[in-house]
Amino acid sequence: MVKKLVEDKIKLGVCYYPEHWSEELWEDDYRRMKELGFTYVRMGEFAWTIFEPEEGVFSFELFDRAVAKAHEYGLKVIMGTPTATPPAWLTHKYPEVLNVTQDGISYQHGARRHYNYNSETYQRLSSIIVTKMVKHYKDHPAIVGWQIDNELNCEMDVFYSEADHKAFREWAKAKYETLDNLNQAWGTVFWNQTYTSWDQVYLTRKTVPNSPNPHHMLDEKRFISDSTISFAKVQADILRKHAPDQWVTTNGMFNHLDNHKMTNELLDFFAYDSYPNFGRVIEDKSEKPLRDRKWSWNLSIVRSISPNFAIFEQQSGPGGWVTRMEQPSPKPGQLRLWTYQSIAHGADMVMYFRWRTATKGTEIYWHGINDYHNLPNRRVKEVDKVSKEIQLIGEKIAGSSYKAEVALVTSYDNEWDGEFDKWYGPYASKSKDAWIKAFQYNHVPADAVYLRNETTINELKKYKVLIYPHPAILTKQQAELFKEYVKEGGKIIFGCRSGYKDETGQTYMKAFPGYLADLVGVTVEDFTRVAPFEEVPSINFKGENVLEANDFNEILHLQSDDVEVIGTYSNAYFEGKPALVKRNYGLGSSYYFGGVFNLEQASLLLKEFELNNYQDQFELPEEIELAIRHNDGIEYTFLLNYSERPQEIIVKKEFRNILTGNIVTNKHTLNPYDVLVLES
Amino acid sequence: MVKKLVEDKIKLGVCYYPEHWSEELWEDDYRRMKELGFTYVRMGEFAWTIFEPEEGVFSFELFDRAVAKAHEYGLKVIMGTPTATPPAWLTHKYPEVLNVTQDGISYQHGARRHYNYNSETYQRLSSIIVTKMVKHYKDHPAIVGWQIDNELNCEMDVFYSEADHKAFREWAKAKYETLDNLNQAWGTVFWNQTYTSWDQVYLTRKTVPNSPNPHHMLDEKRFISDSTISFAKVQADILRKHAPDQWVTTNGMFNHLDNHKMTNELLDFFAYDSYPNFGRVIEDKSEKPLRDRKWSWNLSIVRSISPNFAIFEQQSGPGGWVTRMEQPSPKPGQLRLWTYQSIAHGADMVMYFRWRTATKGTEIYWHGINDYHNLPNRRVKEVDKVSKEIQLIGEKIAGSSYKAEVALVTSYDNEWDGEFDKWYGPYASKSKDAWIKAFQYNHVPADAVYLRNETTINELKKYKVLIYPHPAILTKQQAELFKEYVKEGGKIIFGCRSGYKDETGQTYMKAFPGYLADLVGVTVEDFTRVAPFEEVPSINFKGENVLEANDFNEILHLQSDDVEVIGTYSNAYFEGKPALVKRNYGLGSSYYFGGVFNLEQASLLLKEFELNNYQDQFELPEEIELAIRHNDGIEYTFLLNYSERPQEIIVKKEFRNILTGNIVTNKHTLNPYDVLVLES
Amino acid sequence: MVKKLVEDKIKLGVCYYPEHWSEELWEDDYRRMKELGFTYVRMGEFAWTIFEPEEGVFSFELFDRAVAKAHEYGLKVIMGTPTATPPAWLTHKYPEVLNVTQDGISYQHGARRHYNYNSETYQRLSSIIVTKMVKHYKDHPAIVGWQIDNELNCEMDVFYSEADHKAFREWAKAKYETLDNLNQAWGTVFWNQTYTSWDQVYLTRKTVPNSPNPHHMLDEKRFISDSTISFAKVQADILRKHAPDQWVTTNGMFNHLDNHKMTNELLDFFAYDSYPNFGRVIEDKSEKPLRDRKWSWNLSIVRSISPNFAIFEQQSGPGGWVTRMEQPSPKPGQLRLWTYQSIAHGADMVMYFRWRTATKGTEIYWHGINDYHNLPNRRVKEVDKVSKEIQLIGEKIAGSSYKAEVALVTSYDNEWDGEFDKWYGPYASKSKDAWIKAFQYNHVPADAVYLRNETTINELKKYKVLIYPHPAILTKQQAELFKEYVKEGGKIIFGCRSGYKDETGQTYMKAFPGYLADLVGVTVEDFTRVAPFEEVPSINFKGENVLEANDFNEILHLQSDDVEVIGTYSNAYFEGKPALVKRNYGLGSSYYFGGVFNLEQASLLLKEFELNNYQDQFELPEEIELAIRHNDGIEYTFLLNYSERPQEIIVKKEFRNILTGNIVTNKHTLNPYDVLVLES
Repeated sequence: MVKKLVEDKIKLGVCYYPEHWSEELWEDDYRRMKELGFTYVRMGEFAWTIFEPEEGVFSFELFDRAVAKAHEYGLKVIMGTPTATPPAWLTHKYPEVLNVTQDGISYQHGARRHYNYNSETYQRLSSIIVTKMVKHYKDHPAIVGWQIDNELNCEMDVFYSEADHKAFREWAKAKYETLDNLNQAWGTVFWNQTYTSWDQVYLTRKTVPNSPNPHHMLDEKRFISDSTISFAKVQADILRKHAPDQWVTTNGMFNHLDNHKMTNELLDFFAYDSYPNFGRVIEDKSEKPLRDRKWSWNLSIVRSISPNFAIFEQQSGPGGWVTRMEQPSPKPGQLRLWTYQSIAHGADMVMYFRWRTATKGTEIYWHGINDYHNLPNRRVKEVDKVSKEIQLIGEKIAGSSYKAEVALVTSYDNEWDGEFDKWYGPYASKSKDAWIKAFQYNHVPADAVYLRNETTINELKKYKVLIYPHPAILTKQQAELFKEYVKEGGKIIFGCRSGYKDETGQTYMKAFPGYLADLVGVTVEDFTRVAPFEEVPSINFKGENVLEANDFNEILHLQSDDVEVIGTYSNAYFEGKPALVKRNYGLGSSYYFGGVFNLEQASLLLKEFELNNYQDQFELPEEIELAIRHNDGIEYTFLLNYSERPQEIIVKKEFRNILTGNIVTNKHTLNPYDVLVLES
Repeated sequence: MVKKLVEDKIKLGVCYYPEHWSEELWEDDYRRMKELGFTYVRMGEFAWTIFEPEEGVFSFELFDRAVAKAHEYGLKVIMGTPTATPPAWLTHKYPEVLNVTQDGISYQHGARRHYNYNSETYQRLSSIIVTKMVKHYKDHPAIVGWQIDNELNCEMDVFYSEADHKAFREWAKAKYETLDNLNQAWGTVFWNQTYTSWDQVYLTRKTVPNSPNPHHMLDEKRFISDSTISFAKVQADILRKHAPDQWVTTNGMFNHLDNHKMTNELLDFFAYDSYPNFGRVIEDKSEKPLRDRKWSWNLSIVRSISPNFAIFEQQSGPGGWVTRMEQPSPKPGQLRLWTYQSIAHGADMVMYFRWRTATKGTEIYWHGINDYHNLPNRRVKEVDKVSKEIQLIGEKIAGSSYKAEVALVTSYDNEWDGEFDKWYGPYASKSKDAWIKAFQYNHVPADAVYLRNETTINELKKYKVLIYPHPAILTKQQAELFKEYVKEGGKIIFGCRSGYKDETGQTYMKAFPGYLADLVGVTVEDFTRVAPFEEVPSINFKGENVLEANDFNEILHLQSDDVEVIGTYSNAYFEGKPALVKRNYGLGSSYYFGGVFNLEQASLLLKEFELNNYQDQFELPEEIELAIRHNDGIEYTFLLNYSERPQEIIVKKEFRNILTGNIVTNKHTLNPYDVLVLES
Repeated sequence: MVKKLVEDKIKLGVCYYPEHWSEELWEDDYRRMKELGFTYVRMGEFAWTIFEPEEGVFSFELFDRAVAKAHEYGLKVIMGTPTATPPAWLTHKYPEVLNVTQDGISYQHGARRHYNYNSETYQRLSSIIVTKMVKHYKDHPAIVGWQIDNELNCEMDVFYSEADHKAFREWAKAKYETLDNLNQAWGTVFWNQTYTSWDQVYLTRKTVPNSPNPHHMLDEKRFISDSTISFAKVQADILRKHAPDQWVTTNGMFNHLDNHKMTNELLDFFAYDSYPNFGRVIEDKSEKPLRDRKWSWNLSIVRSISPNFAIFEQQSGPGGWVTRMEQPSPKPGQLRLWTYQSIAHGADMVMYFRWRTATKGTEIYWHGINDYHNLPNRRVKEVDKVSKEIQLIGEKIAGSSYKAEVALVTSYDNEWDGEFDKWYGPYASKSKDAWIKAFQYNHVPADAVYLRNETTINELKKYKVLIYPHPAILTKQQAELFKEYVKEGGKIIFGCRSGYKDETGQTYMKAFPGYLADLVGVTVEDFTRVAPFEEVPSINFKGENVLEANDFNEILHLQSDDVEVIGTYSNAYFEGKPALVKRNYGLGSSYYFGGVFNLEQASLLLKEFELNNYQDQFELPEEIELAIRHNDGIEYTFLLNYSERPQEIIVKKEFRNILTGNIVTNKHTLNPYDVLVLES
């Protein structure tokens, strides 16, 4: 079951908070939204106290008027459930609903997401408000769908209230049945951590020196994800029961949450909040940083959840809180560029955040398309331009699919375990960065694959090549799946630190890379981190290139005659030993690299894998992203210029520019931040 | 009512803790103080347990002897109330008096300032000890005045005890009367923060992720200031009631405290603690750092509170606690230099801190003029030299006024709000630094003005030029005041981020710079932060200079024909657009600069403003500060060499050096750290 | 009474956790240990829950089988008491046993060392388990000795539970008898900290701003050390009572613990855990960092506790927790090198940590000699090689003594006080580093001396030279001891900041260097820190060398005619003033240097002191360490190559290489990480 958004054309919209503004402004606001060609208005998600000013007293007047007025202007409304920000009366009366730090200090009213998912009180009060709202709005002709809460796990992804500890205990009982099983899974015999009674079991707590049991920690993150989904499920069930004709989703992609599972189990499709401008303030000292273009990878992950998806918050100005995240203004053209970035990757609905910059609160610098002054500005003009373009091309593109023949593989288990484990987590980040840069700069469209228990061979066979950099946790079943994939013709590559842990995060008593050894035909004979202050070793790649062997070096031992050594260490005490091997296996081939990937290596390997980089159609500078959506045999090629400088491209055949209707061929110049959408 | 110190001549003194030393040392100590020409001894402020060894039991013997002996040597005593350090018995018996962190963790006995201002218990016990002390000493012929507490808000300027939360609730009720008003002022509709009952209202508490409501935060700082003043007022009232002939002050200038209001309402004059040596250990990576010379600006602020003031603690050696603030020793000459720095800026009383370096406790490295060993040293010799000089010139200079024709404007509202707001607070700091360097290096004496509700047009008209760099909070009344000021002939300049907030810290629904637009004749068409990793744009200033447009760029839109563009952006997407404008208005002129000031810009603008830099009298290198005190038509020009190297100056007319009686003219060399005081 | 290990030959062993592994593996494990020539197996120290699965229920079956099987293979067992990791049932039932932060937040079950030493409950339950264990194993023929707890104070060396506060109060009463004495010792008159009732006395608590009374802080560390020893004593007494024929020790050397006192009072010898590989990950930006070779100095300190000692944990692979301390793999040869490093410095027993890398828990990356896979690897092979060599030479070397004619002096008082005091503690660290590098790079074997109340003139007279860089705390008795030492022919040198504090950490009312002035013949006339941003002054040393005078400059004043100035400041305002002096005194001479030592100065001073650097026997590059153990007139010279490159040495006479039996003379090359042991 693929949960994708179904729209007949690309649609735009905007987030709007009627409760923030004088009611006199509403009509003009809606009129201008309509003029901008917007279809959707999203509202309601931070308004619990307006809906329920005191416990058990409900009031819909304000939003009734706001929705009615939107309806008058032909706008469709997406209504949010307001549980992300409990009312002051609620947390004051029921402090047990508050989230608590690992040290036991309670968060308090004053910002957002200060509640915990497992409080029965909070679940009860949430159910009541959601039920009241859906019953009230289920038949409203303007309302098309629901957003549950807002950005689950944003800014806060750990929870240690009493309710959480209690729920975790029950979760652990359900998972392990006996304490003996739990003790085995968490390896509690180490450092005498053995539990002899269930009431000794808690979420991780303050330890000396802040280093809890890693297997316990991994389960804690699984529990947080399950808690989040359970919390959302209560609302999803209520909404579906009462409003079966309105769709249900939630927005944002945050940590400690299996968004795939949540979407599959609860939602109609996934909605993402896209703020590429963060990429221009987050420090990135890596080689050739992607900056805002990194969001293309985020969108690839979103696509792995919902092939066609919605953007519920598309950056529409400089962002920032009063106290942090201070962003520059998007340059002229960037709002348009980022909108096309979303669409190129599969968005069929894009809602700008927000209509007008707030004049109060923590987000007065999280700019909307309109400024405080509400006068015409360049951002509104740019959105108007995009909207007119989308009206031209939106019908063609809606429903089409992103085209990729390579996928970068990961799993929630490895991401959550690696977050804590300094012996492979940081390598996973580095290698991911190297690969997504290599994809971008070499114009190789790529997908993300989250390996799940349900993952089938057919889902993998869509790809010529799979790249799974450092899967520390890798089960026997997963190894079998990859063998099958390669046997049937696929290519797969693994990096160092692969296959040495089971699902508990404990290590196998096996030579590395564990169950993968059968497929890749090597074991790891010796290994070392590259020490700080040491010379970084190097690798001779096919006798042609000398590459850095940064961070970690595994010395490989061939277990089979059919393994071909294509990279050897060219210095250090392991000079001449294998670093990178290839093995033909069935109809395909496997690769194993005893290191952490960097951009140069990844770019060479993309060539080795013979992936399509569309050189028969284009000559493109690195600054341009190439993305293709296709539908019924027609391809829509998006060329996006992320650079502040014009870029020359060579187009080797004739394409139609569907934004202008012109034919594009031979030399063409993309202006700074400009976009081409070509049909062929 | 200007609260200034009135002395018939400049007087010196010293801080002394008789309780720290064997009583046998007292006589010799006083004798040597007298020999050094000291007038005052300050004592008593950390001695509560000596005065009240157990609750309700009082003892004055030790200080009676100490005061009597001082009196014997003709020294005048300033007595401190001892409330900065509660006795161990007090905090142990009444833990509710302790201050608490925002997270709810209590501070404890063991250092200082661990109490809260709002505890009724603490107020009661403070009143008792102060009453006992003043009744005991009110008629003592040696005692001339009182210091309330010590360094209010030093090292600790936030308070979250239960008593503070409760008092804040009452403060908010008094200010807002209704919750509706409070909800409006704090913009609580944002993120559903609406309060529906007064008992939900607290000072800011732990939020996710440490980002409380900014309007609430601004009120919190106003409340802290009011609490501090209320706490001091209780003591001031008691002291004045019982000792109407002894003056009352307190010492130090710290954050979250409206020192102007406190001085006006409670004190006879303001007293400052001056430690320029901090400037030699605090990291300052800015261009041409001022180091110890930055204290000249601190003294300018002090002067805005009390035109003639006291220094209650003048640096007299290397400073530092056992654990931090490790300072080098003042170089030979620096103690003298810093003493004249204080006097040049308006100090008529200077007390060195402290007589002898403590041999115990946290401040064993906060050196007094005497060392532990109590033997002659170079610091005592240097103080002796200063004292002899002061005896020569002190009568002339006492009571004279600092002379300035330009003022740098600020307000407590903008300082407190900007402390939290990363979108203008850091710019305010940078621009302040640029301007005070420009004043110093161009030899333009300057004043500080704190804009207050009571500020009158006459107070402003004293200045030819006002500089108000980034007044985010700016009311309609203030805008009117500035218009009047310019109409009557003043010049004023604002930088970017001006005029966009009201007194709650909420933004106006107006084009920037809000109510100032009428005066400056421009609005802000577009703006951006300068992103990290981006090239810094530049400005063409009058076609002559190309200046950096660092940090923030506002693109100005002319609203009136009479606006003259004197700076335009010379690159970036807003190339050619106005960056700096001038407008003649009434008899004066207004300037608006869409950026953050740097030293080069500020120096050019000082020329533009045609401010007196005394080039008709002197040619001075940047290393020399020029300051003028004047009285009855006579000017005393202070030239202070902050450099470790000799400095050549040219004196263009004849002055009398009142330290030597010699005539100074033509070329003159100031030795390292040397001082000239010239009469004309 | 010198507490040294007595072995008839050097013995090897390994740490083993039978409870971590399937019982089927035990036999093969023991067989292979025996094959590797191991004598000892260390076990049991993290197994409380196995011994006592619920309160009062005891079980020895698992360890009985494990010990019996070891015995079968002729291995000797060292049994650990399991108190480092309390059972979950214990801390859950008795939360008062948990350690607490200074802020009052409790640590919890989940790692190790989360208990406090002063809980009567924990002492009671510890006594019970230790008694049960020793009664059970006291007569077992395989068991030779006991380890108390594990790594006392490792990862956690401060304790603030209620039990600790209470015990501290009693400790203070016992030490000071009256509050008046305590108030004097802590200088509580400063900042009004005077205690008027014992129940006001606590360990240091949260102060503003984290700067408790320094004298109180020093006593707190003495108390922690005493608490640790008391806690260990309870166990030592039980063990000795029941098992008088088995020895008792504990392992590791951590902070806030007087290991000399503990060893002298409780143990048979001291055992250290040696992980030189930390030196390859800890950032060391100093000149010519020692890296793993720094552990030679740690071993020198160990030797000052027990001249012959045990290594209970010798690094046997890359180390690291899941979350931190990520080490590279030892390079081929380094495990052997580090084993010889231990032996060269006095180890007669070396136990590798651990037999096989754990597959679960926080230490899955703390590699044993065997890998997870349990297959042959290069680390096992290297240990096998070492073991065979030790069997050749172990009988000769066991019991021999390290030879040194210089000692670097320190004291627990200065280390603990200096940890808090930024005005000399950091200098002590820097100077220590400079001296130990100078010893190493100039091939001057050196000892550590911890000055104690019991230290005798005879202990000092063993050394030609004593170096005591910055003894801030220095008593009259100590000064007398040093005078006696010099009178009788010794040489001694002090650096700046010497002799200005008494045992409470209060300063003397004396000219620096206090009671040392009589010996060194100078006082300090003036002094300063070198300010950041200032040029570092320099020193002219004997008119030959110009040396940096970094960090701190004391200007010396000669008090006696017989003082020779051998270094003068060559710039700054104190140019030409004495910086370094020598004075012949009795048969010896004293030196005083008014600065912080660096490597260049220390190296020149080693020449000045005419210390033996064995140039008559060798020419050695800096990369080689020279260490000598001697016995009955025979010397065993260890030459250790810490470098990754071969090193050429010149041997000027004939030695026998006792590892090979060959004669070594003239030119010889040491391979990377190689070792020579020469007999002469």
